[in-house]
Amino acid sequence: MTDLLVVGSLAYDSIQTPKGRAERTLGGSANYFSVSASQFTKVSLVGVVGEDYKDSDIQILKDRNIDTSGMQIQKGKTFFWEGAYEGDMNEAQTKITNLNVFESFNPRLPAEYTGASFLFLANIAPELQLQVLDQVKSPLCIGLDTMNFWISIKLEALKSVVKKVNVVLINEKEAKDLTQKSSVVAAVKQIVEMGPICVVVKRGEYGFMCYTKSEGFFSLPAYPTENLVDPTGAGDTFAGGFFGYLSSLKKAPTAQDFRQACIKGTVMASFTIEDFGLGALLKVNSDSFKAREREYLKTVTH
Amino acid sequence: MTDLLVVGSLAYDSIQTPKGRAERTLGGSANYFSVSASQFTKVSLVGVVGEDYKDSDIQILKDRNIDTSGMQIQKGKTFFWEGAYEGDMNEAQTKITNLNVFESFNPRLPAEYTGASFLFLANIAPELQLQVLDQVKSPLCIGLDTMNFWISIKLEALKSVVKKVNVVLINEKEAKDLTQKSSVVAAVKQIVEMGPICVVVKRGEYGFMCYTKSEGFFSLPAYPTENLVDPTGAGDTFAGGFFGYLSSLKKAPTAQDFRQACIKGTVMASFTIEDFGLGALLKVNSDSFKAREREYLKTVTH
Repeated sequence: MTDLLVVGSLAYDSIQTPKGRAERTLGGSANYFSVSASQFTKVSLVGVVGEDYKDSDIQILKDRNIDTSGMQIQKGKTFFWEGAYEGDMNEAQTKITNLNVFESFNPRLPAEYTGASFLFLANIAPELQLQVLDQVKSPLCIGLDTMNFWISIKLEALKSVVKKVNVVLINEKEAKDLTQKSSVVAAVKQIVEMGPICVVVKRGEYGFMCYTKSEGFFSLPAYPTENLVDPTGAGDTFAGGFFGYLSSLKKAPTAQDFRQACIKGTVMASFTIEDFGLGALLKVNSDSFKAREREYLKTVTH
Repeated sequence: MTDLLVVGSLAYDSIQTPKGRAERTLGGSANYFSVSASQFTKVSLVGVVGEDYKDSDIQILKDRNIDTSGMQIQKGKTFFWEGAYEGDMNEAQTKITNLNVFESFNPRLPAEYTGASFLFLANIAPELQLQVLDQVKSPLCIGLDTMNFWISIKLEALKSVVKKVNVVLINEKEAKDLTQKSSVVAAVKQIVEMGPICVVVKRGEYGFMCYTKSEGFFSLPAYPTENLVDPTGAGDTFAGGFFGYLSSLKKAPTAQDFRQACIKGTVMASFTIEDFGLGALLKVNSDSFKAREREYLKTVTH
């Protein structure tokens, strides 16, 4: 039985920030998402890696009870990304993107995954997201992430995906670009008109803005930290906490559930940024999560 | 008896935004501050205007029971500022600054103001702020605003003021520049080390970050609106709501009081940006304030 299924990228990343450098560290949206979500629920993963992918990096997921039977190992090399952050690290500058085996990724779902209750379509090509949607039966909730690249070159396909999902996670600039609005408030209202019941705008250190038609806006800043080392994966970690929590409820989420899910995502993401790659996220346990959540809620409770 | 005293600028502003243009509209930090604060408490004002300043613009303050006996009318013209905003209106581009009578402003306090319980030093030259501090007896709480201009050319004088006040209101970039820190979290901690018990970072649409040594961080986003017309004066309006509320408590504020004060300031500022100049702020009444506050709290309550 698959509770939460994620389809996304598995990668090695080389990352430079003002705090240092990491070479070929484990990355990719599906890795961040599934490790984060595994704090809350049973996760299954579909993605593709090359022959260079280390067994120990698969074992990391297995150790967290993540089902990796949907992971494809193809001839060639694993997706590689190199990027750098400067100053306040609000935006990555991409130095190298080698898609490698990811270029011909064909997301076939194992039969036992097709009945997943929760599905997250991480940032991959909209056509592939549509292929995944064609294979699943009737999930309680489907989430979607995307990026500017697809908004600029695959807008129509992306809009088809948006129509079919329940939750869209997106950053501020992407929300404005997708809707051609200058106000993020106007943008999220328009995205909800396209079909989803919930839009969550990821705002980095400024937290999130969540909108549902029934309950309106819910917005909070991020956990205040001096210990920003590497923001890579923060958005996918947020998504993992968000959907992992929803999946643990084993029912169709309400607007109130989305609010709580945003808090779980924010707390999980606050760990990820404290080290390069998955370094800090892999150390989180139930106790450290609860302590951080308590600390976070103190900073946003009036 | 003076509850809350503000010393700051009185001006005419010409403002261009994507939503339109206003010519020589009433502005200046002391006007925004005192109109905002007058929703909560009795305000007195010290500032300087020229012979061109309209009686009706003084009457606006008198109608709100604001004591204008500390307003000086000098030979010459009133401070004039012209600025423009583009795109998401996060930053003003200054086109014209004519200091006029403000250039020789000498903030003399009427005797009955020197015992003010609460004092707000709006954004004026640090030396003038020190002059004001020399004239007051022992306020329960002193607040300070400043700007990058003074950080770059009057840093030492500004640091002397910071040492003597209880609350610093500052924007993100200014907080980083003042402390030479790249993290706003690190910056506010350092400002508190300089003397103040509370630092409030103004973050525009991202709201505020409030820090006290005893209670740590308290941070919330702004009220979500599509109706952004002109952000001029939002920071001074926030400060007015913040200190107006504190003054209404008639006691030395606690960390919990600062949290509530941030909420009052945020709600007041949400009105100011809905029209040019003081247009929207002047229409606020107790009922519209309470309704907006309820609506705002719904968007930030988990």
